[in-house]
Amino acid sequence: MIAFPDPRLAAQIAFVVEIDKLKGVLRQTLLMDSSRRENDAEHSWHIATMSFLLAEYADQPVEIGRVARMLLIHDIVEIDAGDTFIHDEAGHEDKEERERKAAARLFGLLPADQAGEYSALWQEYEARQTADARFADALDRLQPLLHNFETGGATWKPHGVTRAKVDKLTPRIAAGSKRLGAYARALVDEAVRRGYLAP
Amino acid sequence: MIAFPDPRLAAQIAFVVEIDKLKGVLRQTLLMDSSRRENDAEHSWHIATMSFLLAEYADQPVEIGRVARMLLIHDIVEIDAGDTFIHDEAGHEDKEERERKAAARLFGLLPADQAGEYSALWQEYEARQTADARFADALDRLQPLLHNFETGGATWKPHGVTRAKVDKLTPRIAAGSKRLGAYARALVDEAVRRGYLAP
Repeated sequence: MIAFPDPRLAAQIAFVVEIDKLKGVLRQTLLMDSSRRENDAEHSWHIATMSFLLAEYADQPVEIGRVARMLLIHDIVEIDAGDTFIHDEAGHEDKEERERKAAARLFGLLPADQAGEYSALWQEYEARQTADARFADALDRLQPLLHNFETGGATWKPHGVTRAKVDKLTPRIAAGSKRLGAYARALVDEAVRRGYLAP
Repeated sequence: MIAFPDPRLAAQIAFVVEIDKLKGVLRQTLLMDSSRRENDAEHSWHIATMSFLLAEYADQPVEIGRVARMLLIHDIVEIDAGDTFIHDEAGHEDKEERERKAAARLFGLLPADQAGEYSALWQEYEARQTADARFADALDRLQPLLHNFETGGATWKPHGVTRAKVDKLTPRIAAGSKRLGAYARALVDEAVRRGYLAP
């Protein structure tokens, strides 16, 4: 970084540089060609792109640019807190505390108004109480299902994930979009039929 | 993919699956920690995120959700056409024809209305004639500069890039944002001073 006579822009650029680390935070998900694990930046790109493509399936009115903004930053806290696998129950015990600290440090790099705005947007996403957050969460749940299906259950099998565990998550898709929820259930049915997922 | 009794949604999911390949299209840019080359999905995530963060610097009014949508899909044609290094003059001779074909195939996976919408958005981005496209392009030019600076000129040095070549590109940043253009010029000055970039 450089000395630049505009502290606001300098702080924003510092944040842009810092979040480059999201490209190194690996998820359990494999790329659809099974070549390697996906990282959080790639995942965030995919679901933000999906938000615009699939906006018509939101059950309640959503501000789709806001949903995309939420999705682009929803995993930034994992730069400090790491990715916690959705089926890792032990890892979820201190997840909230780790992520809260991470949000304070990372969004705290921004000028105060944007720090507040982005912290609030991330908290709204986490709470899933608004239509925007519920639709964002639906996409965040749907994308790994598609990856698991396309890779023949590459994440499900080594972790011994069963249909019952996946069935706990698909209602979060339907909570944002009944039609995407129906698609997810059909995908899970077929995954079980093909032996990608334990019944 | 599965048989699903809704051809519109099936086509949209086919596109979502196909664009996963963007995660395997490598750019010349290194990640800021120099660990490996960046791919197009990571790059698209970074600049779409930057669009919301830096929206205040657009010189003309922009619809920022539309800018982000443009940036999220701006490199999808490279799934077929490959990444053409900005300083590769030979590679640019047939770039347009290769990318036009790629856009027809890839956006053609979508339902007709979305195929038209996304093709038009990509063409608008390429043409840089609207305020939205000029601001999007400014971010697409600024981000690799930041990467080059943070990695001590990792892409500039092996390709023998000189200040004169970089100076041909920075006006495209100023065309979308005078203040981001001024930041880019200060960054280039300092890169030359530090020996990251040949004078």
